[in-house]
Amino acid sequence: MVMTWQKTLPGLGTGAVRLAKRITALSEGKLEVLPYGGGELVPPLEIFDAVSQGTAEMGHSSPYYWLNKHTASAFFCAVPGGLTAQEQNAWVYFAGGQQLWDKLYAPFGLRAFPAGNTGAQMGGWFNREIKTVDDLKGLKMRIPGLAGEVLNLLGGSSQTISPQELFTSMQSGVIDALEWVGPWNDLALGFHKVSKYYYGPGFHEAGPMLELMVNKAAFEQLSPELQRIIKVACAAENDLMAAEYYANNVRAMQVLRNDHSTDVRSFPPEVLKSFFKVSEEVVANVGSKDALAKEIYESYAGFRKASMAMTPVMELGFLQARNQNRSDA
Amino acid sequence: MVMTWQKTLPGLGTGAVRLAKRITALSEGKLEVLPYGGGELVPPLEIFDAVSQGTAEMGHSSPYYWLNKHTASAFFCAVPGGLTAQEQNAWVYFAGGQQLWDKLYAPFGLRAFPAGNTGAQMGGWFNREIKTVDDLKGLKMRIPGLAGEVLNLLGGSSQTISPQELFTSMQSGVIDALEWVGPWNDLALGFHKVSKYYYGPGFHEAGPMLELMVNKAAFEQLSPELQRIIKVACAAENDLMAAEYYANNVRAMQVLRNDHSTDVRSFPPEVLKSFFKVSEEVVANVGSKDALAKEIYESYAGFRKASMAMTPVMELGFLQARNQNRSDA
Repeated sequence: MVMTWQKTLPGLGTGAVRLAKRITALSEGKLEVLPYGGGELVPPLEIFDAVSQGTAEMGHSSPYYWLNKHTASAFFCAVPGGLTAQEQNAWVYFAGGQQLWDKLYAPFGLRAFPAGNTGAQMGGWFNREIKTVDDLKGLKMRIPGLAGEVLNLLGGSSQTISPQELFTSMQSGVIDALEWVGPWNDLALGFHKVSKYYYGPGFHEAGPMLELMVNKAAFEQLSPELQRIIKVACAAENDLMAAEYYANNVRAMQVLRNDHSTDVRSFPPEVLKSFFKVSEEVVANVGSKDALAKEIYESYAGFRKASMAMTPVMELGFLQARNQNRSDA
Repeated sequence: MVMTWQKTLPGLGTGAVRLAKRITALSEGKLEVLPYGGGELVPPLEIFDAVSQGTAEMGHSSPYYWLNKHTASAFFCAVPGGLTAQEQNAWVYFAGGQQLWDKLYAPFGLRAFPAGNTGAQMGGWFNREIKTVDDLKGLKMRIPGLAGEVLNLLGGSSQTISPQELFTSMQSGVIDALEWVGPWNDLALGFHKVSKYYYGPGFHEAGPMLELMVNKAAFEQLSPELQRIIKVACAAENDLMAAEYYANNVRAMQVLRNDHSTDVRSFPPEVLKSFFKVSEEVVANVGSKDALAKEIYESYAGFRKASMAMTPVMELGFLQARNQNRSDA
């Protein structure tokens, strides 16, 4: 199993290693999964090709890294203004998403299963105050993929910088802002030491789903029992990693606020409005690339719309009312 | 495995049966789990005793049914104004909840693991319009447990009625209101045919966690491999059932609105304020019963408070901004 992450990266990396161990243990060694961190066997962003070609039999990554293979891959991870983790799970497992994912990956000789989630992400670290959309103009920000397109359409300048260089790029002023993951992973990299503001919410990733890719031919050669073990182990990791991120984000946010006096802010409503409006345009554009992209987009967008119609009397309504009526507020 | 539910009840029952089959399959029959629906071997609300005493070795249920064993059991399922499904997972798996659950259940000879979640629930079906808190006075509503206590403190009259009798009780006017689960399960029971309003959000259950109870002595006699299979199978079900509920709730809400013209409403802010205020009092009271209840309450309430401080820049902030900026709004 090749991975996009270092094996020791908390959450993404450690969860993938835990998944590898779980498959090995459940199969009592009949299917021994050996995890290789990013760069150990193949570079982090070449694992799609490696698993597709059978150089490795499994890979753990984020589907939105494969936009260059097919832009619709983003729908199986996260798109700007898209689905939360629980909505993403619902769509993939029980509203047609998995079948479309299979259809998308089959030509590449791949199968993929949900295998983790970081949950809602923060907007990012900024050294420029964001009061209006104009403050995004000329903003040099590390924010890759479709979210970067959104920033660029609003006048910013998205940058792609490797995780190892993020801290010094921010410190030296090469960039004005960056988004990495969320409080847990961000605290570990020390971005609070070189940034003025920590803005939320992240419009761009509300619940990015991670994947276990398996070489299709290799998967089909496995016994039904071993195929089942892979699927069950992935579903368990999908549950556990999301919980691990949430618990550690809560802890890290307390440390940032209490021990480091981090200035945690909400983007102004006007700025969020622009982020969400432009996100819809960018995502609709992704969904018009070809017939399969259109089919995937329509399924995804239909589910998103129906969920948005429900959530004011369910999850969103509950969260709002609970926070508005905090006894310590 | 005895269950509180009928085996055919969509979600709760079918998910428990799926869990039983998954354990059997993963163990290749070494651990054959035979599911018995509520009443088949023991009555639905006696399965705690049955598993505790070893009459059955496993049970699938909701921990808040065991308030009469120890009121703190509710914290491992749902309390009014409490945690969402993802917060509950985070607390139980990665913020000390499981250890406290083990401590609570050990004297009863039980172990328990998270094994499903219905997600956020609706407030319920009403034949009386709720404009102010005064409209709750004298309201006869099927709403059991701690949520019923909240209603009673606000002047209502909580009723305990079996699922089989809910429809006719509402139809005949024996009750003015009821809460059952959410759109998916509620639509199947036809409550829209005998009710004027469907109110949300449910203040009382934002993400009730279901449990697989295992007789502790029986569990400890299993090999480490079989113990692992039980835990992994439960975590997978915890992921899948929550996704299944969410996807089907979205569908059912569309059917209710579009095909049955159900009048879906939000409780007025003043009413929600009272629900949440009184809920905090009721829950604090539960947390003061004895030393263990206090320990569990403090852990739970501390996590809840820290999550509420984070969510405006994470999940809640995202959901609000996404809904405020709907392109079709």
